[in-house]
Amino acid sequence: MIGVDLGGTKILAGLVDREGNVLRRHERPTPTASQAELLEGLAGAVDAVGRREVAAVGVGVPSTVDQRDGSAVASVNIPLADVSLRSHFASRFDLPVGIENDANAAALAEWTFGAGRGTRHMVMLTLGTGIGGGLILDGRLYRGAVGAAAELGHIVIDHDGIPCQGACTGRGHLEVLASGTAADAAATELYGPSGTSEQLVERARAGETAAVAALGGLARRLGSGIASFVNIFNPEIVVLGGGFASVGELLFAPAREVVAREARPPSGETVRIVPAELGNEAGLVGAALVAFEALDAA
Amino acid sequence: MIGVDLGGTKILAGLVDREGNVLRRHERPTPTASQAELLEGLAGAVDAVGRREVAAVGVGVPSTVDQRDGSAVASVNIPLADVSLRSHFASRFDLPVGIENDANAAALAEWTFGAGRGTRHMVMLTLGTGIGGGLILDGRLYRGAVGAAAELGHIVIDHDGIPCQGACTGRGHLEVLASGTAADAAATELYGPSGTSEQLVERARAGETAAVAALGGLARRLGSGIASFVNIFNPEIVVLGGGFASVGELLFAPAREVVAREARPPSGETVRIVPAELGNEAGLVGAALVAFEALDAA
Repeated sequence: MIGVDLGGTKILAGLVDREGNVLRRHERPTPTASQAELLEGLAGAVDAVGRREVAAVGVGVPSTVDQRDGSAVASVNIPLADVSLRSHFASRFDLPVGIENDANAAALAEWTFGAGRGTRHMVMLTLGTGIGGGLILDGRLYRGAVGAAAELGHIVIDHDGIPCQGACTGRGHLEVLASGTAADAAATELYGPSGTSEQLVERARAGETAAVAALGGLARRLGSGIASFVNIFNPEIVVLGGGFASVGELLFAPAREVVAREARPPSGETVRIVPAELGNEAGLVGAALVAFEALDAA
Repeated sequence: MIGVDLGGTKILAGLVDREGNVLRRHERPTPTASQAELLEGLAGAVDAVGRREVAAVGVGVPSTVDQRDGSAVASVNIPLADVSLRSHFASRFDLPVGIENDANAAALAEWTFGAGRGTRHMVMLTLGTGIGGGLILDGRLYRGAVGAAAELGHIVIDHDGIPCQGACTGRGHLEVLASGTAADAAATELYGPSGTSEQLVERARAGETAAVAALGGLARRLGSGIASFVNIFNPEIVVLGGGFASVGELLFAPAREVVAREARPPSGETVRIVPAELGNEAGLVGAALVAFEALDAA
């Protein structure tokens, strides 16, 4: 299979076998000038990996997906508004094509090959500039009525809170209060316009009180969100992935404290909160799993 | 089947057929002095309905349920802490017995015979002194890893909020901010110690500005919670039941406004938010459906 992970800055494509091994990979920048260029870039990445050798293609996109027509909805920085990606690529490649939200794809990969293997009920959060989510419920990827489920960054944790980011019209969402972007905002407040989340984390690791407090506040908000998911899903495991999750215990420890307070028995006592295992290949491998699914459905 | 709906003040038991018709019913006060008396009361209610005519019994309880041993967890006003209800009644009645959280049971009933019939993805909230929840996902009641899922009143909508109620150690949960108890609290604030939610609703219906504002604030917090569920589940339908839902449009209209702002496309545009249809027999009928399930599993 070929899996493609479309990101805001780069396209990562790979040849993946049934065991999740990435046999070959190709990377190129994401063309964002127009939809036509973006579609060319995606097709070019698939060709570069070797389209003629595979039976199906899966594409993970950083957007909500409407599975009714296989389109990307509410893309912010990526010009994908008005096209059915699934039919476009299916006819272009003459292969079965699956489209999936990138965090859903990553969840599928972590569940099949990574931190969640062997479980039947898993919640995954991908922490980056936004917060993505994926759900494995009763042993299957949960997609909801039209494929738009698991927008886990867009739960309200502060009902009178600040506006969410991007195209989101909501307020006080987890994404705006506990993502890498929230860490950037905290860093700007502490260190001026050039402050970054990396700097905040570095200073917190060095023990700077204000940095520890700012990161701890963010982590506790993350914990409120995780606790809500624990009470909603009674999952066996919550997997935290994405670049910002690499902050590690500075983030995890305060989050776990809040979960212990907020989560109900027996869910709170039985859940494990763990880091993802597949790193930044999760999206690619997950997209390939979506390709396997498209093949089985074809 | 016999379905039993165990409430904090009364036990409602009924003989129910496969079409959800309640053929006979029996009601008695809930004995809360001791666990032994409560178990006697439940057994007495089943006998009164006619235990010898049925093939299985289902019991809905106002507690989180641990399906590993069929016990009720975290009961507040009901002495059920240390007993496997399922094995107790299965051996006492010599019949298959199913135990389920009462809101899960109500959701099963509304999905099978009420407001949610024909859907595959349904979120139900029961609004009363607390907020219960039930989930139908991919055409099945979702229970989570050990049966404790769908504690939908215990999501955090205000991460620095007021303490939750009962035995819950959390803060800013939907239940404490948008239930009938929250309405009672608002009424007490407006009208003094004797103020009640009924009075608040009555005054709001009569157009009293302060009452409309207080109820509207509560409804908007409810809307934040509903919107979170819409973004999480991409459900076809959200069903609002329980006594406090009878407030109707004074509650629904502001909640829908907030959902329109908070919910992401396409989930927000495709979901319907509707009142429950089965009234206070939902729990009873749902418990009977759980009995059918216990029979099928036996």
